[in-house]
Amino acid sequence: MKLFRFGAFEQEQPGVILSDGRKVNVAAFGEDFNEAFFATDGLARLADWLTIHADTCPEVSEDVRLGSAIARPSKIVCIGLNYAKHAAESGMDVPKEPVIFFKSTSALCGPNDNVIIPRNSVKTDWEVELAFVIGKKASYVDEANAMDYVAGYILHNDYSEREFQLERSGQWVKGKSNDTFAPLGPFMATKDEIADPHTLRLWLKVNEEMLQDSNTDDMVFKIPTLVSYLSQFMTLLPGDVISTGTPFGVGLGFKPPRYLKAGDVVELGIEGLGTQRQVAEAYQ
Amino acid sequence: MKLFRFGAFEQEQPGVILSDGRKVNVAAFGEDFNEAFFATDGLARLADWLTIHADTCPEVSEDVRLGSAIARPSKIVCIGLNYAKHAAESGMDVPKEPVIFFKSTSALCGPNDNVIIPRNSVKTDWEVELAFVIGKKASYVDEANAMDYVAGYILHNDYSEREFQLERSGQWVKGKSNDTFAPLGPFMATKDEIADPHTLRLWLKVNEEMLQDSNTDDMVFKIPTLVSYLSQFMTLLPGDVISTGTPFGVGLGFKPPRYLKAGDVVELGIEGLGTQRQVAEAYQ
Repeated sequence: MKLFRFGAFEQEQPGVILSDGRKVNVAAFGEDFNEAFFATDGLARLADWLTIHADTCPEVSEDVRLGSAIARPSKIVCIGLNYAKHAAESGMDVPKEPVIFFKSTSALCGPNDNVIIPRNSVKTDWEVELAFVIGKKASYVDEANAMDYVAGYILHNDYSEREFQLERSGQWVKGKSNDTFAPLGPFMATKDEIADPHTLRLWLKVNEEMLQDSNTDDMVFKIPTLVSYLSQFMTLLPGDVISTGTPFGVGLGFKPPRYLKAGDVVELGIEGLGTQRQVAEAYQ
Repeated sequence: MKLFRFGAFEQEQPGVILSDGRKVNVAAFGEDFNEAFFATDGLARLADWLTIHADTCPEVSEDVRLGSAIARPSKIVCIGLNYAKHAAESGMDVPKEPVIFFKSTSALCGPNDNVIIPRNSVKTDWEVELAFVIGKKASYVDEANAMDYVAGYILHNDYSEREFQLERSGQWVKGKSNDTFAPLGPFMATKDEIADPHTLRLWLKVNEEMLQDSNTDDMVFKIPTLVSYLSQFMTLLPGDVISTGTPFGVGLGFKPPRYLKAGDVVELGIEGLGTQRQVAEAYQ
């Protein structure tokens, strides 16, 4: 099953892409794709509901705005430096254990919304990432059982303002949290849709030039390790988003570095998880 | 007005301490103290409602459990090294601009709940802090208007696992986010209740020994600066919690350092904002 959300910003309605490719409005199911939905076995309940109601659900037009594929979670946890070549281009070592940082959930937006270059920003950068969604409350989880806590996968562009992140007094969250810095979608694929999340090609182009082109098989710390590791330091809640880090090819890594300017077009994708397209826009 | 919440964990009901000191259950008002409440001028609406209903609200018993004084916010933003002597005891310089980090909102708990020492923790530490609550959406706010965005003040103990925070591969969030690491309360005092938030004594004792005893007049970056500064990097949402940093006297700063062990009793307070008391308990 593939979940998506559509309509005006912060008024999105839930939709499902059926196995025949039809996109249907499931507002009649009566729930958003939020913490309560995931916590109460919503995926199974929705699948059951669709066996009866799919045929009568209204179709969703192809030209409607897509929102974040799931509702605002309690947290967006990101993993830093989780691809060896990206660590090198950032001038850092591959960490001995996962590096964790948070992104403000107010940064969430739709997969094709404009990315707003913040006021006073000169170093807005891109990061294609595989994100996954937590399906049930996770605290002190063993690696062996960790995949039981994963509900599905989503494409994420972890936009990063490098001056805010690295040159403005400590802690990366400062460069990760501006509005529109977390486009999430176009859909969440449930776990069963992706045979192996660690063999997916992921790529990103700026103005049609391919700048990131890698595979999740290069990840340093894999998803079961991340779930188990994170759950030692915090309780992961249903609907929480974990973004697994970006491969080589971000703007910071070029010599000289390359950053976004108004009008630039960013396109990205992950095998099996669709594509995104953002136009960069200066903050007004 | 003073807001509080009471009852079982995650099933708290809202209450108000009236000007005559009476604690009343305001569940009949029909709202929790959450983002929607603050976003829709809930404080003014609740005050109006109380002019009619206060006399008929049931009283809340003194021996009931207190929860976090407000509902789980979209984010808890903390300010690092915001008292000069604390920066020194941490072996760090006073930053040129505010240091920001996040705390997982799943760390939230009541002011008198036990603090759980995480599995494998040997460096669980305390930090008495003045927190404030955002009253309306704040993006690119000027310092001159910043106090318009503040709804009120709460006592916070920003518990910190120093090994997780400082010795486990970058980014402090890792040592700030375990369950029970954010006791918030006993109440939120609305802005009008505190004449000047920058002249409040704040203190913390462990096993009756006074270890932190300072005043918010020592803060490096004051509340209007923090609101304005943060709003350049992220949108602050109604109900969000900003914790303004801790003064000198944390366990990390002692020679040798002192950390919590099971059975230790932590008490803390801020002038006008009540007191908290936590007993340290090992994770089972």
